[in-house]
Amino acid sequence: MLHDPNRVYVFDTTLRDGEQVPGCQLTTPEKIEIAKELEALGVDIIEAGFPISSPGDFQSVVELSKAVSEPIICALTRANKGDIDSAVAALKYAKRPRIHTGIGSSDMHIKHKFNSTREEILARAVDAVKYAKQFVEDIEFYAEDAGRADINFLAQMVEAVIGAGATVVNIPDTNGYCLPDQYGSKIKFLKENVKNIDQAIISVHCHNDLGLATANSIAGLQNGARQIEGTINGIGERAGNTSIEEVVMILKTHQTLGLHTNINTKNFYELSRMVSSQMRMPVQPNKAIVGSNAFAHSSGIHQDGFLKNRENYEIIRPEDVGFPDASIVLTARSGRHALKFHLERLGFSLSKEELADAYHRFLTVADSKLDINDQDLLLMMNKQQLA
Amino acid sequence: MLHDPNRVYVFDTTLRDGEQVPGCQLTTPEKIEIAKELEALGVDIIEAGFPISSPGDFQSVVELSKAVSEPIICALTRANKGDIDSAVAALKYAKRPRIHTGIGSSDMHIKHKFNSTREEILARAVDAVKYAKQFVEDIEFYAEDAGRADINFLAQMVEAVIGAGATVVNIPDTNGYCLPDQYGSKIKFLKENVKNIDQAIISVHCHNDLGLATANSIAGLQNGARQIEGTINGIGERAGNTSIEEVVMILKTHQTLGLHTNINTKNFYELSRMVSSQMRMPVQPNKAIVGSNAFAHSSGIHQDGFLKNRENYEIIRPEDVGFPDASIVLTARSGRHALKFHLERLGFSLSKEELADAYHRFLTVADSKLDINDQDLLLMMNKQQLA
Repeated sequence: MLHDPNRVYVFDTTLRDGEQVPGCQLTTPEKIEIAKELEALGVDIIEAGFPISSPGDFQSVVELSKAVSEPIICALTRANKGDIDSAVAALKYAKRPRIHTGIGSSDMHIKHKFNSTREEILARAVDAVKYAKQFVEDIEFYAEDAGRADINFLAQMVEAVIGAGATVVNIPDTNGYCLPDQYGSKIKFLKENVKNIDQAIISVHCHNDLGLATANSIAGLQNGARQIEGTINGIGERAGNTSIEEVVMILKTHQTLGLHTNINTKNFYELSRMVSSQMRMPVQPNKAIVGSNAFAHSSGIHQDGFLKNRENYEIIRPEDVGFPDASIVLTARSGRHALKFHLERLGFSLSKEELADAYHRFLTVADSKLDINDQDLLLMMNKQQLA
Repeated sequence: MLHDPNRVYVFDTTLRDGEQVPGCQLTTPEKIEIAKELEALGVDIIEAGFPISSPGDFQSVVELSKAVSEPIICALTRANKGDIDSAVAALKYAKRPRIHTGIGSSDMHIKHKFNSTREEILARAVDAVKYAKQFVEDIEFYAEDAGRADINFLAQMVEAVIGAGATVVNIPDTNGYCLPDQYGSKIKFLKENVKNIDQAIISVHCHNDLGLATANSIAGLQNGARQIEGTINGIGERAGNTSIEEVVMILKTHQTLGLHTNINTKNFYELSRMVSSQMRMPVQPNKAIVGSNAFAHSSGIHQDGFLKNRENYEIIRPEDVGFPDASIVLTARSGRHALKFHLERLGFSLSKEELADAYHRFLTVADSKLDINDQDLLLMMNKQQLA
């Protein structure tokens, strides 16, 4: 599968890990609408649902399989025949089906969730992959809570499931616990110690409980992973999943990493808005890449530098993510240069003295208002001319 | 100053770097209210404003200096006498004043923002520190855009300003450009190559343009920095600053790092709500640590594991950050175990068969609703009993 060793596959789970969040549930037609936009964005895999979990979820996987052509359609299961049978049935119409099966890999999960042993869990993992492989060629295995798993047992599990036919092995930091260097080391260890590791793609699936999902995903890619799992706007269980838009823009901005995706980054902004609105999940203004303030320069020092040369304060061009415009906003912290920029835009050409005077008046207005729009500026300038 | 080598100082700039965002401006009484809560939170330094920038900002620094006792009060300046004179005047009533002065350190800023040379910029930096030092003992120097600066020139600048009397050197990743390993390496280089580095504290000031502010701050601390700058909720210019709550909780969760702060983490949730409401800056539900969903478990697999043992899916106890409660929310993706938990809470004790029947009915209800509350459950159970 890996013709290009520097190609990173993007696995979107907005409609599965994202959609299971309280308040985010979608109808099947809404899911189809988002899936088509994910296809236009260029994601490689769409996780469409968890078919055994409810009749509605089953039906969504069926309908998404029919509606989408290019991306692989993936269905989630636990490591048992009932779940896998349900996923196989739901994927009937998928042009490129994938089954995503797995089980806990940390002693915490093995003991407290499954009340089981490492040996038994390993056998269940292998059995599930072998069983699923009878129906579908592309099998991804998730080693749940890998972030806290014993690394040698994790390596043993990964080797066993690849041996059983897994094409992708997903190393989730289920609880968002790892630090980037820890998570990167895990991927490096697997890459160096699992004999058959080159027969599968390593996937990173990180959660954001400590605010580190994006950094952990990048650390994984730097150490040999070639698939990232995430959601639009980073939505998902608790503090959410990795934000796809952040990882993709990091790879684009840091070309020295030598990695690339198939994503049409100009589609990010519109899709972010669609997901936020349909799933009723607000995006905070200071959200990286897609927040409404992500490209807004407001302080005087920054506005001044920005107006002299965009690259002083801008590492991504807003238009590269489909953002309407990089806006210079006027507030009480803005400087003369920013005021001049806006006044010139409105047709006022001022001498240095006139500007100094206007700036003085501007500060008085700005101290009593949150931000200053064109109307405020025009009012201010008219008063000045009348005075 | 550094008696305890493992103590990390927390520098809050919610009222300066946060407050300069469009729509976030506060009145002086509002700033005082937040500053008092920051004091209760246990931050070590409050950056109170940029006095030269506007009369309102000047007055806020004056009033905050009077209102707050414990934390150091810091005022921002550029590297010139006018700015510094204004800061000195504004800090008149501060019990523990600090001046935060600095200048661009990257060639991009030196050339395109200052139209200057490295030599000239170095001289201005040293002059500013020496000048400020005449009035205030505690001088922090920021090397703006250090994230993109030539590392040897940056080291030269840091050595020179420490020589001139800087007590803290701030290495900002002004544009949020660095990857964690890059940013960590910069701090390590300074720690190893600047002769007088142990005479000052290295501070990290990261921006979140690529979603990496928290990870970069941690990388800085792992390599020898001992002050972190950030804001509550990560608000700030563009995609914002480092979220203080994320960095502090990482240090608390990862005790093997051996670092600690003076923060009363139980105050985070309430302060987050106050900042969000007063500054009109919403916190997205999936924000780490303080988002409304940060501790909400909704999928069946997760709920089941969570109910068996909290630590399966919970690395921070919600009460440690003052969060009201870890809530199990019922949706179409919930499993039998979660349903049983809620029904028992409501007084229903069901046999295995009764639960299976109730679960079947629950899924039908859940597929048509976003989430299921107690009233829905009671209605469902009453219908069942009547049927």
